[in-house]
Amino acid sequence: MVKQIKKEFKTIAIYSSIKSQKVSQIALQICEILNSLNKKILLCKSSSFTEAKERSYTNKYIVDNADLVISIGGDGTLLSAARQFGKEGLPILGINLGSLGFLTDVQPEEITQSLQEVVNGNCVYDERFFLEAFVNEGKSFNIALNEVVVHSGSIAQLIEFDVFLNKEFVYRQKADGIIISTPTGSTAYSLSGNGSIIHPEVRAINLLPMFPHSLNARPLIVDESTEIIIQINKQYKGRLSLDSHNNMAVKGGDSVLIKKAKSKLLLVHPRDHSFYSASRNKLGWSLGL
Amino acid sequence: MVKQIKKEFKTIAIYSSIKSQKVSQIALQICEILNSLNKKILLCKSSSFTEAKERSYTNKYIVDNADLVISIGGDGTLLSAARQFGKEGLPILGINLGSLGFLTDVQPEEITQSLQEVVNGNCVYDERFFLEAFVNEGKSFNIALNEVVVHSGSIAQLIEFDVFLNKEFVYRQKADGIIISTPTGSTAYSLSGNGSIIHPEVRAINLLPMFPHSLNARPLIVDESTEIIIQINKQYKGRLSLDSHNNMAVKGGDSVLIKKAKSKLLLVHPRDHSFYSASRNKLGWSLGL
Amino acid sequence: MVKQIKKEFKTIAIYSSIKSQKVSQIALQICEILNSLNKKILLCKSSSFTEAKERSYTNKYIVDNADLVISIGGDGTLLSAARQFGKEGLPILGINLGSLGFLTDVQPEEITQSLQEVVNGNCVYDERFFLEAFVNEGKSFNIALNEVVVHSGSIAQLIEFDVFLNKEFVYRQKADGIIISTPTGSTAYSLSGNGSIIHPEVRAINLLPMFPHSLNARPLIVDESTEIIIQINKQYKGRLSLDSHNNMAVKGGDSVLIKKAKSKLLLVHPRDHSFYSASRNKLGWSLGL
Amino acid sequence: MVKQIKKEFKTIAIYSSIKSQKVSQIALQICEILNSLNKKILLCKSSSFTEAKERSYTNKYIVDNADLVISIGGDGTLLSAARQFGKEGLPILGINLGSLGFLTDVQPEEITQSLQEVVNGNCVYDERFFLEAFVNEGKSFNIALNEVVVHSGSIAQLIEFDVFLNKEFVYRQKADGIIISTPTGSTAYSLSGNGSIIHPEVRAINLLPMFPHSLNARPLIVDESTEIIIQINKQYKGRLSLDSHNNMAVKGGDSVLIKKAKSKLLLVHPRDHSFYSASRNKLGWSLGL
Repeated sequence: MVKQIKKEFKTIAIYSSIKSQKVSQIALQICEILNSLNKKILLCKSSSFTEAKERSYTNKYIVDNADLVISIGGDGTLLSAARQFGKEGLPILGINLGSLGFLTDVQPEEITQSLQEVVNGNCVYDERFFLEAFVNEGKSFNIALNEVVVHSGSIAQLIEFDVFLNKEFVYRQKADGIIISTPTGSTAYSLSGNGSIIHPEVRAINLLPMFPHSLNARPLIVDESTEIIIQINKQYKGRLSLDSHNNMAVKGGDSVLIKKAKSKLLLVHPRDHSFYSASRNKLGWSLGL
Repeated sequence: MVKQIKKEFKTIAIYSSIKSQKVSQIALQICEILNSLNKKILLCKSSSFTEAKERSYTNKYIVDNADLVISIGGDGTLLSAARQFGKEGLPILGINLGSLGFLTDVQPEEITQSLQEVVNGNCVYDERFFLEAFVNEGKSFNIALNEVVVHSGSIAQLIEFDVFLNKEFVYRQKADGIIISTPTGSTAYSLSGNGSIIHPEVRAINLLPMFPHSLNARPLIVDESTEIIIQINKQYKGRLSLDSHNNMAVKGGDSVLIKKAKSKLLLVHPRDHSFYSASRNKLGWSLGL
Repeated sequence: MVKQIKKEFKTIAIYSSIKSQKVSQIALQICEILNSLNKKILLCKSSSFTEAKERSYTNKYIVDNADLVISIGGDGTLLSAARQFGKEGLPILGINLGSLGFLTDVQPEEITQSLQEVVNGNCVYDERFFLEAFVNEGKSFNIALNEVVVHSGSIAQLIEFDVFLNKEFVYRQKADGIIISTPTGSTAYSLSGNGSIIHPEVRAINLLPMFPHSLNARPLIVDESTEIIIQINKQYKGRLSLDSHNNMAVKGGDSVLIKKAKSKLLLVHPRDHSFYSASRNKLGWSLGL
Repeated sequence: MVKQIKKEFKTIAIYSSIKSQKVSQIALQICEILNSLNKKILLCKSSSFTEAKERSYTNKYIVDNADLVISIGGDGTLLSAARQFGKEGLPILGINLGSLGFLTDVQPEEITQSLQEVVNGNCVYDERFFLEAFVNEGKSFNIALNEVVVHSGSIAQLIEFDVFLNKEFVYRQKADGIIISTPTGSTAYSLSGNGSIIHPEVRAINLLPMFPHSLNARPLIVDESTEIIIQINKQYKGRLSLDSHNNMAVKGGDSVLIKKAKSKLLLVHPRDHSFYSASRNKLGWSLGL
């Protein structure tokens, strides 16, 4: 997964979805570092830091002109940056606010050194895929980096659905819903539902029934190329939600098609990046050594 | 749990919450049997079979006059009968519609024989307890035979709460919610969430976090006398739901007190009743022998 | 569970199964404190600290003469003390070596104060029950405070058995084995197998199949009075192990009867003892507050 | 995974590891069909049916001369055929004895038709990979189609080990052991330990701790190219077992390297083969439709 690249980033956008003094301070610090490195800086108009709205740029301008987006915040902020810029092909570097994330692995105290290395291309990147969801063969509803959830809309309420994989009927299930997640999402909501952790390098999609109404339901991991159809059975209604963010109503008889999106996300990391180290840190695995 | 009683039932109410021809047929069959046994029959006005509304009785009349309620339907119908009549002290016998339930164990083809035995007191009964929920020390919201669920209101959305047991702080949890179930409820929603099966005789309450945001959360089983407080943390809002039926909004700062209710449910069974046999049947455990 | 007692302990035995300088130091410190309190001290001959073998006493003498046993070490040491002295009726106080246990809750730095309070009866105690195992209606094999395990003897090897509860057939299972645990054992081996945590006050026994060969196997929690029979099926052979300590071979056709033993264990705790606090500490639950 | 091939099989070996009249009958029936199709038949000397030992052939002869091996029995028999012939490059067709397996999908009553189609190349095949295990950089111990298990040797006994993936330390774990399985093995022992079902097409290896001594252990799914090292910690000893078949002792300090073997297994199926249909059948998933 992790390849080294030797490209130099010249025009760099800065984004955050969090409104806080700390974010503003980090944004300022990043601007100073980038200035000293003679990089061109673009503040994103969609950002939360509004000190300089007049000097900020639209998403379209950013997508057309930037080489890299720096996302300041947690994994949630990076998800937001991924939906706006990442899916358009812009690589993203995640700076966290002090608590390591799975996706944001530059700590505030490492900014100066990490940034200098990264913008000079002395970095690694990993490629993540998005899921796309379509209702009744309509146009793509939206994309998800973590997971698509088809559910009853309300906790402790059943929905019944049929699962088809590459057009083959697989099983019928009564449950609160079903989580369909990427490897990136395997450490997010899916993990809370006892799903396995899937290394980002594995090209797979995980189907995890939520509170299934039968004892023999199990998580099922399929190839990333699999086209998944969740068909809501008559008499039931539900909701479709992507990355716990976008959501829309679905009704009995509706078919939700979920598949790997064409666009990909390029995450940029300092060279010492390690998925296992992030896992150990976030999940409290024993260091041992 | 299972004790033999030798009481004869004289006035018998018939209840169902399901509107179907099959229910009407079974109700009619039951009336004929009871007539031939010289029992007094009371049709419940709150029932779904309305052929004889003029000859049916209010819940209050039933509670004051009947010795036994016969519930026709599945476990859901029996839950409804339990809330209306069971908690007022009336024993309940569950007739199912052909598919064995955990609570309704007389099959349609056994009605004649089972009914004759049961109404003559040749039966066993088991006692189940209800949970009661109170918000902010207000009056009891309602009772649940299976479970009380405190949750975010919406799937894939977090709520944060503190759990206190007998006034002692136990843990803080971010999760979709928490299921607090009786042994009766251990084969219902809690089982879908991987909870243990608890024999009705065990005097315990199960606390099961739903999609907990930490890997070390585990189901916790406490004595039935335990007073459980779920305190919703500020900035979160949620819902409280009982037996997937009654529900109400709760908000940040609210305290939900859940404890064993004073009223109990008396389930009446034919003498060959077995919880393990029902489990084996419903859960598909190997017969082996 | 936790009751206050006001009994004064006069003759106190000291026990450990661990050979280390730290244990000797703590034993010495305890002797000094007890001396200053005018208590009579009995060193256990079965202990690991042998500095004073000539001044130590047999288990029989201890059982006949002591009022209290102080166990120095971890939960494993306390299990050993429980089997030797606890089951004979002697209350046990657990001093740990610096890392809190579920059963040993006096920290080295609290010894002086806790001991003074406890030996003067200013303490609480909780009662735990043992399981007893009998093979083919023979005499009791031994007792277990945590769990009895019937298994194939070797990992990744199947055994088939029938489970009977109070003489009623419940299910047939192919599995690596089955764990039958007390509430005390619910935080030990059973927890590793995803068993629920059962508060010591709950009067129940947990049956947990290990690597069951069917998807519908679930942990089953029954009343502590239940007589459990695990009947090994022909063509299989296995082992019986108690508290991962005692074990013996069993063969196809053998019946293992497991039931609550008559003898009980009295654990003595300082007055601020809390099972939930120990759980939070050992399991890393969020303190939150 | 499933590709269509148009090769005609000319020399066909027949193998079983089960000694039963039914196997002999099926073998005879297969011989008759193959004779009528003018195929050359080779009975395997390593087989259980010995009626015709003088006309049977060594494994070496089979490997050098056959185009296809027909395995009669269950999944266990096919595992045995895979180790002997499959890993040498011979495609295998599995005939079961009446109860569908994950690997053996021709039913006795379908033999005539399926065989005729398959040997004429009117079939599909899927490629499965083996795992290879090496102790202390020695020569390959053996191969496994399902799983390699490193364990304590005895149930309810701990082993401590460090896990390295591609030479990077990942975590230290105390547990009964760890299952390292292929997608093929995901429906075998790993499934009993609550592992996810992994479609054979997914190129991944699953690491599943067994009865882990910490609450934050989770199954981890990594790319099939990952080199896995399980290093047994000093003071512990254990065993290494492959497909619950081959096993050897390992000791504290030993390093077990597990990686994808070079040789692959080609499974041959009738054209209507479906992994999902086999799963539904074996696992009892709801047919629904």
